[in-house]
Amino acid sequence: MTNFDVASAAPLHPVGRQALLAALDEGWADPARLYREGRRARMLLDAAREAAADAVGCRPDELSFTPSGTHALHTGIAGALNGRRRVGRQLVVSAVEHSAVLHAAEAHAAAGGEVTEIPVDRTGRVAADGFPVRDDTALACLQSANHEVGTEQPVAEVAEACRAAGVPLLVDAAQSLGWGPVAGPWSLLAASAHKWGGPAGVGLLAVRKGTRFAPVHPADEREAGRSPGFENIPAVVAAVAALRAVRDEAEDEAGRLRGLVRRIRERVPELVPDVEVVGDGERRLPHLVTFSCLYVDGETLLHELDREGFSVSSGSSCTSSTLTPSHVLRAMGVLSEGNVRVSLPRGVAEDDVERFLRVLPEVVGRVRAELGVTGEERGGGPQTAELVIDTLGKRCPIPVIELAKVIGDVPVGSVVTVLSDDEAARLDIPAWCEMRAQEYVGEQPGPEGRGTAYQVRRRG
Amino acid sequence: MTNFDVASAAPLHPVGRQALLAALDEGWADPARLYREGRRARMLLDAAREAAADAVGCRPDELSFTPSGTHALHTGIAGALNGRRRVGRQLVVSAVEHSAVLHAAEAHAAAGGEVTEIPVDRTGRVAADGFPVRDDTALACLQSANHEVGTEQPVAEVAEACRAAGVPLLVDAAQSLGWGPVAGPWSLLAASAHKWGGPAGVGLLAVRKGTRFAPVHPADEREAGRSPGFENIPAVVAAVAALRAVRDEAEDEAGRLRGLVRRIRERVPELVPDVEVVGDGERRLPHLVTFSCLYVDGETLLHELDREGFSVSSGSSCTSSTLTPSHVLRAMGVLSEGNVRVSLPRGVAEDDVERFLRVLPEVVGRVRAELGVTGEERGGGPQTAELVIDTLGKRCPIPVIELAKVIGDVPVGSVVTVLSDDEAARLDIPAWCEMRAQEYVGEQPGPEGRGTAYQVRRRG
Repeated sequence: MTNFDVASAAPLHPVGRQALLAALDEGWADPARLYREGRRARMLLDAAREAAADAVGCRPDELSFTPSGTHALHTGIAGALNGRRRVGRQLVVSAVEHSAVLHAAEAHAAAGGEVTEIPVDRTGRVAADGFPVRDDTALACLQSANHEVGTEQPVAEVAEACRAAGVPLLVDAAQSLGWGPVAGPWSLLAASAHKWGGPAGVGLLAVRKGTRFAPVHPADEREAGRSPGFENIPAVVAAVAALRAVRDEAEDEAGRLRGLVRRIRERVPELVPDVEVVGDGERRLPHLVTFSCLYVDGETLLHELDREGFSVSSGSSCTSSTLTPSHVLRAMGVLSEGNVRVSLPRGVAEDDVERFLRVLPEVVGRVRAELGVTGEERGGGPQTAELVIDTLGKRCPIPVIELAKVIGDVPVGSVVTVLSDDEAARLDIPAWCEMRAQEYVGEQPGPEGRGTAYQVRRRG
Repeated sequence: MTNFDVASAAPLHPVGRQALLAALDEGWADPARLYREGRRARMLLDAAREAAADAVGCRPDELSFTPSGTHALHTGIAGALNGRRRVGRQLVVSAVEHSAVLHAAEAHAAAGGEVTEIPVDRTGRVAADGFPVRDDTALACLQSANHEVGTEQPVAEVAEACRAAGVPLLVDAAQSLGWGPVAGPWSLLAASAHKWGGPAGVGLLAVRKGTRFAPVHPADEREAGRSPGFENIPAVVAAVAALRAVRDEAEDEAGRLRGLVRRIRERVPELVPDVEVVGDGERRLPHLVTFSCLYVDGETLLHELDREGFSVSSGSSCTSSTLTPSHVLRAMGVLSEGNVRVSLPRGVAEDDVERFLRVLPEVVGRVRAELGVTGEERGGGPQTAELVIDTLGKRCPIPVIELAKVIGDVPVGSVVTVLSDDEAARLDIPAWCEMRAQEYVGEQPGPEGRGTAYQVRRRG
């Protein structure tokens, strides 16, 4: 098995595992206790905090350990908003933040707060001058790099702009902290250990001095009042040991993985027809690459890759519990069907990447064949001036496949209307038009309120 | 070293450690993923949930894993209050709940809710018919057994009364779940794995079907929406394995530890003068015993016991960061100075308990000698009708020691006034009176607003 999904979770780094075993013996006691085992636990916790702060680039007393990255984000956002509630109630977030940030924003909105979502370009990046903070902005949130497409955000520039405006910036560094610290004068930072090879159960929340912060959870004196609950010292020790270990090798390994990612980004479109590689080409995480395959059902693709021994993830609607495409792909306006995210583990063998590149074209070909797709816009039916195809009740990628089948049946300049009630069509029909050089006219409500009518004008 | 403080935290049970190691290999992946490692993680999580539900006595879909017992309590209380906010805003809690419950209650009060604290008797027990729930009571909370003095609460009776009144009862089972399930028709239950020999980082929250529940944290689909953040499957698997292991031996071990606890409860007052053993004599946790020693400073006592190789905890004010006695001892109205909580680890050797009984009298004697205490109310100064002793600025146990020194200097029937600004005096002066058969008259504000004047009438 080759797990190419470390962006979801990485197995525990061997150094972290060693540290965990030692700390289970030495760090199980309550660090608030004054007896020997308690003092020993306290020393381990203090040392871990120093090392973590060093890796983050903050002071030890600015850093709290939380039970997860999600807790770090929820606590950080709620605490910062509450600390500045008299300044204002606007929360500014990028549209491609992790769902933990967006769910915290929804909770803020539900409580009467204002949420402003900042759009991204087609690479998934916010404009460096694009965070319109105001006098009454309580908090801005920007990830260091996107978890689905790998695009790095202009965090340092946005942090400078926020500082100039007197607004704190919270950086979600979950995907990048294993590769290096986050530049710029950010105010809060959150991260998650199991993304860098630490164990589950550990997040980091840094709150720089001078940042107004008022936790919303019940009082608890542990972790500077910022993270309730008994300290999980063995896991914290393991997380920090793993962080130091991956940082030690980060520069070399990043260079190596960048080469492999570049190879995937270049070769996949050569090997597989009708693929869109997404995300910024250069300003990106070293280990993560994402592409979408036309006329392919993401769930089947993942299943087939799993059968071939490759574990990857997908932002396609069919792999989501809500049957909507990933909010990241939607915000970017790129194709979502047949979406594959590859995130390479540290130490991955070049051979495994090569094998993936051999297997992928076969697998995509098989999935397309099962769906009756030839890859050519066929036409060949009787020519007709206008055409309406009804794909109501059919899921992605069927609407796009049906559209491709008939586009040749109308004369150049004529319009095909696709009726669809699959949310993914809203993203994938325009994306198909862009990839196939057809003209996307627009959408309107479907007849009798059923679904949506997407209109495409044949160009060639 | 002998750790007699498992009520704070127990080291990881060997069975839990084995399970943790296996699950680090098999359960690190995201259980929401459809590939092999994800499915394997999901299976481990499902199996752990089934086993935990079996041990709790609920259905698997009623049970969520949380990052700690504190999280289980905070989430459970907030979710139950929010779910019944239209019914009413009264929260009823016993006065001796864990601080995580009382802090959640404070947060509820700060948000405009009503909190009613139920008193306990001198053993730390609420009256079985003593939970005065009303039509507008949103939630009642009662621990299964007290964490500081070991007294079991009449949970089954209170649960029945709450059910009859249509009010949900949340049971904090942190100290007892390793010994057995909680009887009665409770609605919510919280527990903490590191109390039974599981790892840190795992709590349980059970919410029985039919209980109104509306989480207050941002949306997160994991753990039935009741516990945000990436699932900590290795720790959950270890926690449940440890729970099954301790349950398998619970009956035998409880019997054995009950014998040792009974020995400590009987022998300590024989071996050490001026000791008050606290908590219910029979209806109690099998492994936990608490006593307080007059004329002793708790912090020094702990330190001396630590030097002798015994780790225990204390509810004395001098061992608390807030310099106030434990709220449990206060609610019981018992002596707080020189307080020692012994909680025996499973498998403890009888010899270690015997050695503790040998060491304790020497240690208490040394501490008293250092404080200049002879154990006799000395008097011997010039007899005077009334006496005021000023112990302002002096910490527990000095006010009581000074009182004992001079009580013989006033005639029987006369009053000694002790001026003190130490919060512990409010508890310890009346407790001293009870132990020494003197009459506690009462308190009034000290002269010129300095401290409090406690009045004691000499009886004999």
